[in-house]
Amino acid sequence: MEEEMRLLLQDLDSLKQSLPSSCLNSIDAIQDRAGKIMNLSRTSNSRRSKVKDMSAEVVDSNPYSRLMALQRMGIVENYERIRNFSVAIVGIGGVGSVAAEMLTRCGIGRLLLYDYDTVELANMNRLFFRPDQVGMTKTDAAVQTLSDINPDVVLESYSLNITTVKGFDVFVNSLKSGVDLVLSCVDNYEARMVVNQACNELGQTWMESGVSEDAVSGHIQLLVPGETACFACAPPLVVASGVDERTLKREGVCAASLPTTMGVVAGLLVQNALKYMLKFGQVSPYLGYNSLKDFFPTMEMRPNPQCSNAACVDRQKEYMKSKPARDAAAKAKIEAEASSLNEEPLHLDNEWNISVVDDNDAGASTSEKAPSILPEGLVHELPTADNYPEQVGPTETGGIDDDLEELQRQLDALNSS
Amino acid sequence: MEEEMRLLLQDLDSLKQSLPSSCLNSIDAIQDRAGKIMNLSRTSNSRRSKVKDMSAEVVDSNPYSRLMALQRMGIVENYERIRNFSVAIVGIGGVGSVAAEMLTRCGIGRLLLYDYDTVELANMNRLFFRPDQVGMTKTDAAVQTLSDINPDVVLESYSLNITTVKGFDVFVNSLKSGVDLVLSCVDNYEARMVVNQACNELGQTWMESGVSEDAVSGHIQLLVPGETACFACAPPLVVASGVDERTLKREGVCAASLPTTMGVVAGLLVQNALKYMLKFGQVSPYLGYNSLKDFFPTMEMRPNPQCSNAACVDRQKEYMKSKPARDAAAKAKIEAEASSLNEEPLHLDNEWNISVVDDNDAGASTSEKAPSILPEGLVHELPTADNYPEQVGPTETGGIDDDLEELQRQLDALNSS
Repeated sequence: MEEEMRLLLQDLDSLKQSLPSSCLNSIDAIQDRAGKIMNLSRTSNSRRSKVKDMSAEVVDSNPYSRLMALQRMGIVENYERIRNFSVAIVGIGGVGSVAAEMLTRCGIGRLLLYDYDTVELANMNRLFFRPDQVGMTKTDAAVQTLSDINPDVVLESYSLNITTVKGFDVFVNSLKSGVDLVLSCVDNYEARMVVNQACNELGQTWMESGVSEDAVSGHIQLLVPGETACFACAPPLVVASGVDERTLKREGVCAASLPTTMGVVAGLLVQNALKYMLKFGQVSPYLGYNSLKDFFPTMEMRPNPQCSNAACVDRQKEYMKSKPARDAAAKAKIEAEASSLNEEPLHLDNEWNISVVDDNDAGASTSEKAPSILPEGLVHELPTADNYPEQVGPTETGGIDDDLEELQRQLDALNSS
Repeated sequence: MEEEMRLLLQDLDSLKQSLPSSCLNSIDAIQDRAGKIMNLSRTSNSRRSKVKDMSAEVVDSNPYSRLMALQRMGIVENYERIRNFSVAIVGIGGVGSVAAEMLTRCGIGRLLLYDYDTVELANMNRLFFRPDQVGMTKTDAAVQTLSDINPDVVLESYSLNITTVKGFDVFVNSLKSGVDLVLSCVDNYEARMVVNQACNELGQTWMESGVSEDAVSGHIQLLVPGETACFACAPPLVVASGVDERTLKREGVCAASLPTTMGVVAGLLVQNALKYMLKFGQVSPYLGYNSLKDFFPTMEMRPNPQCSNAACVDRQKEYMKSKPARDAAAKAKIEAEASSLNEEPLHLDNEWNISVVDDNDAGASTSEKAPSILPEGLVHELPTADNYPEQVGPTETGGIDDDLEELQRQLDALNSS
C-alpha cells in the first residue's frame, strides 16, 4: 500500500505541472492529505529490519535480550545456535500456529509450514489467526503474521494435503532439505500415520501432539525412529477419533476446542523442542495434560519389534546395530565431562530466586533465599539413547503393554480419587 | 485512515469540476489509484460485527461453534454464561496479555486491563504484542488487538501503576464495579502485595501467576480471602525476586523469558479461571510448572491466623462465622443432586474418544473404544469451601509448614532422581 501511495503522490505532482495556477491550492491540499495517509500507512506497517547477530545487550530495542539472558542464567549454553535449526510444522491449526509463533519469537532459523485449509471465523476461538485473515490459506496467513513478528526467520510454506500421493512426495522431499525436528500438529489419525511413515522412512526425529475432541485434554510425544515407539507401534492414548472435521461438519456437529488447552499443548511441545535442540533439561518421551484435574501423566514407549510399519522395523535394526559405537561415544563423553567438572564449578549463577517470607514477620518486607530446588551446578542433557530400555528383540513385546498398564493404573487411581 | 481516504476522493471530485477537460484523464487515473488504496485499507481493517447470542450452529462463519460444543460434549452445562462474567487482569505482559487474548477468544463478557508500561522490541520474545505496536502503552495495544479479535467483549483499560496511592484507589474502585475474578500477572513482589491488599479488603477471589527469572518455571495459585492462604500468609514459592525490571536494566542485566513458559502458565491460569467461573473440573489451589523436568507440583495452602495482613485476618473470622450456613447449603445441594441423579443418567455422551490400535493388527486401521477414563456421569464442581481444612484457630500455624515441607519433599525426591 505504501508503494501505491508513493505513486499517487507522484501523479499529483505531475498533474500540478500541467494545471492553471488557480487550481494549485486544491492540489496542495490534496497532497497534504495524501502525505498524512502515507504516514498513517507507514506506522501500521513498520517492520523492524533483520539483525545480523543475536545480541545480549539489555536495551528496549533488542528483541533477543530476554532470550540471550538464558545463557547468563545458566540454562542454555549457546542460545544463538537456535538460528542454525530448521523445524517443520505439519498442521497450522490451534496447536501448530501457536507453536510456529513461539518458535518465530524465539528466533528459530527456518520454519517449514504445511496445511491445506483456509482460515474461518470458526477458528477464532483459538489463538493466532485474526478475523481479517478469514478466507486466506492458513499457510499464507501464518507467513503474513510471522514475517511481521520476526523478519529474521526464514519461512517456507506448503499449502498442500500430505495425505495425497502428490502431497506426500512434496512433503518428503522438503524434509530432505535438512530439517532438525518435525512437529506434528494435525487433527486426525490418517495425517499422523502419514507423518509417521515419512519420518520412519527418513529416520527423522519428530514430536507428535494432540488435543481431545472434548477440548479438555491433550498430549505430546517424542518419536525417534528405531529408538522409541513409532506411531504405529503403540496406540495413541488421547487423540481425536480420526473422523475428519469435514465429515463432522456435514453431520452438523464439531469437536470442541479451547485456546487454553491448545496454548498449553503448544507451549509444552515447543518447550520440549527447545530442550531437544538447545540441549537443556530433560525431553519428555510422553507427556499428557488432563485439564479437568491438572494431571500430567508421563511414560516411555519402547518400539514394537512386530510393528506393522516396515520402515520402523528397519530403523530398529539399525539402532541395535549401532549400539556398540553409541556406548563408546557415551562413555567418552561422560569421561570428558567428569574431567572438565574437576577444573571448575559450572553455572554458579544458576538460581531460582525463590523468596521466602517469614510468616511471623509483621512487615512481610524482608525475604531470604530458600535452598535451591534445582540440582546444584547441573545442566540436564537429552537422555542419551541408552537410557531407553535396550531389550529390543523379536520376541519381546511386553514393554508396550507394561507401559500402557502403568498409565491405565495412573488414570484409574485418578478416577477413583 | 479509511476516513482520510474518503475525504481525499471527495477533494479529487471537486477538483475535477473546476478543471479544464484536458486534465480529466489524469484526475481519473489518480481517482482509480485512490480507490484501490481505499480497498486495500478496508481489507486490512475488516472486523466482524457483534453477535447477539452465542450460537452452537456448526458453520464456518460462527466464531463460537467450537466453544458451544463444550455443552454437547458434556464438559460445561451452560457455556453462554461466560458473557455474564467480568475478569480483571493486572499486568499485561508475557502472561497477562496471553491470558487476555484467551479470555477474549472464549467470549468473556468484560475484561478490565491494568498496566503502566509501554510495548518495546525487547518484549517480542513473548506472544501477543507486535513490532508495529512498539511505543504504544500496553493497555492501548492490547485493546487494539483484542477488539479486532472479538468485538463482543467489553474492554476497559487502565494505564496506571497500582502500587501508587492514586493508582491503588482507581484500581480498588474499578473492582467495585462487579468483578468475578482478578488475575494477577505482574512481575514483581510489591505489585503482588498490592493486589493481595485490594482483594483482601474487598473479599475478592483472585488467581496469582508467576514465572521465574530463569524463564523455565512458573506457577498459578487460587486465593479466596478468608478461605485459603493470602499472599502474605504463605511465602511465594516460585516468584521473581521482587527487583524491578528498571533496576535490572540499569545494571545491564535482565530476567530471561520464553514464550513457551509464559504461554503454558497463561493457559493453565485461564483454564482454571474457566473451570472456576463455568463450574467444571477441579480448580487447582496451587499448580507449579518445572519445565526442565515437566514436573507439576500441587499443594493447598491454608490461611495463617497470624497473618500480617489485617484484612486477611478479618476475612478468616468471617469465613469461620459463616461455617454453619455453608454446611447447611452444601448438604442441601448434595441431597438435591442425589435425587436428580436418580431420575436420569447425566452426560451419556461424555466420552474421551480414545482410539486403541491392536499391536498385532498388520493393517493398523481398525480401532476400538477403550473404557472411558473419566468417571461416568460426573461433572466435577469447584471443591466446596469445606473441602479446605477446617482447623483455623488462633494457635494453629502448622498447616502452612506441613504443606511446605510436603512440597519440599516432592522437590527433593525430584532432584535426587
